Amino acid sequence: MRPKLLTPSSIADCWHSLRQQRPLVHVVPNLVTANDLANALLAVGAAPIMAIEPAEFSQLPNRALVLSMGTPTIDRMQLLAQAGRAAQAKNLPIVLDPVGVGATVWRKQAALALIATVQPTILRLNLGEALALLDQTGVAHGVDVGHAWHDPRLVAGQLARRYGCVVGLTGVIDVVSDGMNWIQLEHGHQWLSQITGAGCIVTSLIGALAAVINDVMLATVSAIAGFGMAAEVAAMHALGPASFRVALFDQLGAIAELIDNSRLSYRMEQHDAD
Amino acid sequence: MRPKLLTPSSIADCWHSLRQQRPLVHVVPNLVTANDLANALLAVGAAPIMAIEPAEFSQLPNRALVLSMGTPTIDRMQLLAQAGRAAQAKNLPIVLDPVGVGATVWRKQAALALIATVQPTILRLNLGEALALLDQTGVAHGVDVGHAWHDPRLVAGQLARRYGCVVGLTGVIDVVSDGMNWIQLEHGHQWLSQITGAGCIVTSLIGALAAVINDVMLATVSAIAGFGMAAEVAAMHALGPASFRVALFDQLGAIAELIDNSRLSYRMEQHDAD
Amino acid sequence: MRPKLLTPSSIADCWHSLRQQRPLVHVVPNLVTANDLANALLAVGAAPIMAIEPAEFSQLPNRALVLSMGTPTIDRMQLLAQAGRAAQAKNLPIVLDPVGVGATVWRKQAALALIATVQPTILRLNLGEALALLDQTGVAHGVDVGHAWHDPRLVAGQLARRYGCVVGLTGVIDVVSDGMNWIQLEHGHQWLSQITGAGCIVTSLIGALAAVINDVMLATVSAIAGFGMAAEVAAMHALGPASFRVALFDQLGAIAELIDNSRLSYRMEQHDAD
Repeated sequence: MRPKLLTPSSIADCWHSLRQQRPLVHVVPNLVTANDLANALLAVGAAPIMAIEPAEFSQLPNRALVLSMGTPTIDRMQLLAQAGRAAQAKNLPIVLDPVGVGATVWRKQAALALIATVQPTILRLNLGEALALLDQTGVAHGVDVGHAWHDPRLVAGQLARRYGCVVGLTGVIDVVSDGMNWIQLEHGHQWLSQITGAGCIVTSLIGALAAVINDVMLATVSAIAGFGMAAEVAAMHALGPASFRVALFDQLGAIAELIDNSRLSYRMEQHDAD
Repeated sequence: MRPKLLTPSSIADCWHSLRQQRPLVHVVPNLVTANDLANALLAVGAAPIMAIEPAEFSQLPNRALVLSMGTPTIDRMQLLAQAGRAAQAKNLPIVLDPVGVGATVWRKQAALALIATVQPTILRLNLGEALALLDQTGVAHGVDVGHAWHDPRLVAGQLARRYGCVVGLTGVIDVVSDGMNWIQLEHGHQWLSQITGAGCIVTSLIGALAAVINDVMLATVSAIAGFGMAAEVAAMHALGPASFRVALFDQLGAIAELIDNSRLSYRMEQHDAD
Repeated sequence: MRPKLLTPSSIADCWHSLRQQRPLVHVVPNLVTANDLANALLAVGAAPIMAIEPAEFSQLPNRALVLSMGTPTIDRMQLLAQAGRAAQAKNLPIVLDPVGVGATVWRKQAALALIATVQPTILRLNLGEALALLDQTGVAHGVDVGHAWHDPRLVAGQLARRYGCVVGLTGVIDVVSDGMNWIQLEHGHQWLSQITGAGCIVTSLIGALAAVINDVMLATVSAIAGFGMAAEVAAMHALGPASFRVALFDQLGAIAELIDNSRLSYRMEQHDAD
């Protein structure tokens, strides 16, 4: 397979489709970022529904499911699993954000059980969370994971093959991988690490685009690229992390135009054999 | 009965009374907009209390109850009912927001049961939610409701008679009806549909004004008019939905002055016989 | 003991240490301000974790615990107690915010039981909440507490001795007391009373500083002074409570510099014998 190029027009098309189709996106939110995700999805033109009653999961006419593992409890993990099974029955894309999975052994085991049940279409996480999921016996902070792992391209590829899904690994450098191929992006701003919910928001945007685009790699790259560009523009209008956050949400509605005006394209590369 | 005119001074008086009396308003919030409602009520001069423990409902010295049905669960529906019964025992105005009631059959049945138990003083909703509540067997998206229903004046009147309450139906055109009479308003801004919680906020403001004004129609019109005017001014200071939201909350504290300076009055009309 | 002076440099050092050490702070949030506390802690350089599953409390490598009693339920009170016991076992500072403790008899009894179990290192509250905790049989609004109580220095001292902890009593005048000595501060802005969560945010900042500074009085004064100064600067950039809130969060990241540039020092005075 030759390297493939994701062009600005293919990415902008995702964002335009989203606004035209206005898909219902079911989000199982956490206690911290529920409001942020609703506002982010509304800003980009999706129709969020934050449903947490299992009795109505199968009745929702949603086109994607977004699972945020933040503020996990034993009951919430069951709820996330139930939402996942409902989405599986509808054959919908499922995006899972294993928030802070490396924080405790309990959280990691809960995440692994959830992944096994839900079989997410896409995992969106940061490097610390990815490393925690690649070592099934320890936790991120207590394990010497070795240097080779820290190349985000290798980490993303390994994770995608391990869990059979597309991985959106975000950080200073973002990598999207389906286990065979990877795409690297370098957008965003340091203030993203000084506000809560930035990762959850990208996760929800991936869900929104996956609702309207069958190509999961393209949806994931488009979400991460668009969000990162919005952050770059927002930072120019901000005095600190809070005014940055306001400007970021303002820009979310203009992502399609931001990408239309950019000249950036992203090259898809093949992973080396393990 | 002759048409009655609601004047700017009668509406502004509501807002001035609110600030003077600072009534305690009990809100049973949802997971998404709890923070927004607390900030909105503080901004207009009310004293919000977000209490969710039934053991303290009867002890609260609140003067109104605001029920938001967002993020419903079987447990939360029981909690809303318990809060409603406590408010009934205190003879307080109850405002109910049946958030997304048309989304699923489960949600609709849960809302109808809650309305029957709580017998709200005021229902605040949008057109989709209103249509769902007028057809008790289907859901909004799956039902051909016919053209006549879509006149918001007819919908509001029908709903008010069906459930024996005042209806605040908000959208591009807002209508307030008590089943006999209706008042039409045209305030607001399209950005209100691009932020979460706009409907919930109006609902909470209706509750705050109903706490200090016995005339339920006047309280409902005053809340919807004041909120819509605040949105119009906010839009002039904003670059997108998020900076609009900040400007909107800034303006909430100045509603009394906005209305004092306006010349708008609202005419009360009689519904035709069915 | 002679009066002791807390200098700008000793206070600024706390804030610099916080940013250097980036301590993990466990917050058991309430439904209303969870997002605010996460953003506030990130802004000042702490690493918040909003964990609510008892199974992981003992596993968390946190260095302080912040307990917000807002939106209390019987289950949440148990959860707060469990988090407190886990922190005790780790010998960590615990900051408790008895939100709205005077609102109902139920809430007050629940708070007293929690205080007895958790034995907080620091109580952060306002005058109304303090008065409720000083009268164990009535509630704040229904009790004539007498004039002498309303001197915040006396109230803070009494409360500190009663519960064996440092008290951070905030309001127009702020007082910090360990029962023997008190320090008075006069920072802040009236808009702090028009946004939700201002008290909770100070509470979380006290927790963050107590994680890196052993001197509990110093940590509490530094948090209250820094937050109040940030509010004063923020007010200069704001048009109303919502833009004030954005500016306040922007300023939280610059507190160390604000204090470095100030010339304010705070004198520690001894309480009179009862």
